[in-house]
Amino acid sequence: MMHDTVRAVSWIDHQLRLLDQRWLPQRMVYLDCDRVDAVTQAIRQMVVRGAPAIGIAAAYGVVLAARQRYQQDNTHWKTLLQKDLELLAQARPTAVNLKWALEQMQYRITPLPPHHDPEPVLLAEAQRIHQTDIAHNQAMGQWGAQLLQPGQSVLTHCNAGALATGGYGTALGVIRSAFQAGKLTQVYADETRPWLQGTRLTAWELQQDGIPVSILADGAAAYLMQQGKVQWVIVGADRIAANGDVANKIGTYATAVAARYHGVKFMVVAPTSTIDLATPTGAEIPVEMRDTKELLEWAGQPLAPAGIPAWNPVFDITPAELIDALVTERGILLQPQLRQLTQFLTD
Amino acid sequence: MMHDTVRAVSWIDHQLRLLDQRWLPQRMVYLDCDRVDAVTQAIRQMVVRGAPAIGIAAAYGVVLAARQRYQQDNTHWKTLLQKDLELLAQARPTAVNLKWALEQMQYRITPLPPHHDPEPVLLAEAQRIHQTDIAHNQAMGQWGAQLLQPGQSVLTHCNAGALATGGYGTALGVIRSAFQAGKLTQVYADETRPWLQGTRLTAWELQQDGIPVSILADGAAAYLMQQGKVQWVIVGADRIAANGDVANKIGTYATAVAARYHGVKFMVVAPTSTIDLATPTGAEIPVEMRDTKELLEWAGQPLAPAGIPAWNPVFDITPAELIDALVTERGILLQPQLRQLTQFLTD
Repeated sequence: MMHDTVRAVSWIDHQLRLLDQRWLPQRMVYLDCDRVDAVTQAIRQMVVRGAPAIGIAAAYGVVLAARQRYQQDNTHWKTLLQKDLELLAQARPTAVNLKWALEQMQYRITPLPPHHDPEPVLLAEAQRIHQTDIAHNQAMGQWGAQLLQPGQSVLTHCNAGALATGGYGTALGVIRSAFQAGKLTQVYADETRPWLQGTRLTAWELQQDGIPVSILADGAAAYLMQQGKVQWVIVGADRIAANGDVANKIGTYATAVAARYHGVKFMVVAPTSTIDLATPTGAEIPVEMRDTKELLEWAGQPLAPAGIPAWNPVFDITPAELIDALVTERGILLQPQLRQLTQFLTD
Repeated sequence: MMHDTVRAVSWIDHQLRLLDQRWLPQRMVYLDCDRVDAVTQAIRQMVVRGAPAIGIAAAYGVVLAARQRYQQDNTHWKTLLQKDLELLAQARPTAVNLKWALEQMQYRITPLPPHHDPEPVLLAEAQRIHQTDIAHNQAMGQWGAQLLQPGQSVLTHCNAGALATGGYGTALGVIRSAFQAGKLTQVYADETRPWLQGTRLTAWELQQDGIPVSILADGAAAYLMQQGKVQWVIVGADRIAANGDVANKIGTYATAVAARYHGVKFMVVAPTSTIDLATPTGAEIPVEMRDTKELLEWAGQPLAPAGIPAWNPVFDITPAELIDALVTERGILLQPQLRQLTQFLTD
């Protein structure tokens, strides 16, 4: 198991500490949250991002919310708390891990007796979710690395690393494990417009651990494949529908189409908490549209002429048939098993 | 014929005036060149860009060079001039129009008697090249617009507009003509990283002429097609090999792969001066690699961590089989005629 050095979410001094990813890699700024509304806002504004990391941050947010509500009214705190959970759930629409983490917390809240301080049991649950996520990522790293052959190079998109999870990462977990196993020659990272997660986060995170990474424009990925420079595309996921369709960062679908055209293999790495059996297909996954300023401005300065509209979906849907392997903590599903997710989860 | 308002290259007061495209759309800065080395540098630094515009600027550059050399030595000026032509030819490697325009000028230089002021005849030739380019673009606009059906929307990549040519544009010429004919509902423009030609230039140019345009991230183009929002991709070209393979701005190939996957039609619009029968296939087209700062910095500020490498090819090669229609001033070549370029040019 390869050591990894980056942690985006931590619980310190009875508070949630978030590494503010809006300022990476130029500045290491931490945001300490002692109230749930600060956590909700941090998720919405992408201080913390990445489906698993959002879920973990939300779980700690529930701890803070329960503390506040119990101090406010130690009889009716559970009822008051529901509003906080709803606001947390609505902070971002696409990733299902947020909803999943809140459900895990709700399972602990429901049986608690009234007049019982909820913080210890909820904190223990949030920490269990957090530690389990890291363990799952390490397991996925081992599974996924088995799919690579020595001397291969890979393309990744966005940041599905330690920064996007409790630690170690999903796609970057596989990359870490494959590098540790001596199989990986080179990582290519799409810059990932508009938020530049590849340039700012993936490059920084892999650099911390000494893994060779090179940046390219998103539009150059197909040409990279035409040149034979990569054998795998490895990405994370924000939600996986029951039929195996995957929502992930905008641009993922384009790389999947190009990978299939070039015979490059396409791997999705995500914990089973990302699988949403209640969503039949990708068409039912809500795709978040964000402020067009993300495309039209940089650092507050305009890039485009005034008055130009933009189309800014920040996720897209990759159909199951383009995915060669789905790696979860429970093992690997290869095409065409991917269409049997229900059976896989209930085995 | 639709009126168009933008001119990037002009000959004013015995000098070459270039609209400096590095500052658009925030600032309208003009660069006046009275020496050929200023023109060579302007091409290299992308003050002027776009294959046809580079060719036209180079033709005017030859006028300036001939004036200088004739003043310097009115006997041996032709020999001295060859060095200037070589430096101009090497300013950018991928677009063949630069080489083509210099050849046109050379045809006029060769028969000139010694001790004969070359400026009038060379200026007339440069202006002929310039005016012919505009006329060809208008012809291509008419041809290409015929391929569209009323109510269609299109995606374009980079800027193949008035700014990239003598005027009217190649891809944007077709878009202008189709809009004028009432066929075009909406233009989507890839932002076109790293130089943001779509956001900065295409959006601005179409806005000048009142054509509806919306910006998207390059990685979102495949998702746009999956959503059924466009029926055509329309792009320019920097060089077309004898077998119909097309070099164009990085990211073009990715949109061609995605277009084929979705059944979206793919149109290349370029004058026959872009066709290079001396280059058998796309594999032999030199693809320019530019400074990685284009990816790793913005406005002089770092985006990536220090020490991260990048891969920055600024063109890619789209194989002929992905191109549904090639529109030139001489008419339309549909697939599979595209493989018979030699015959088309010699008819």
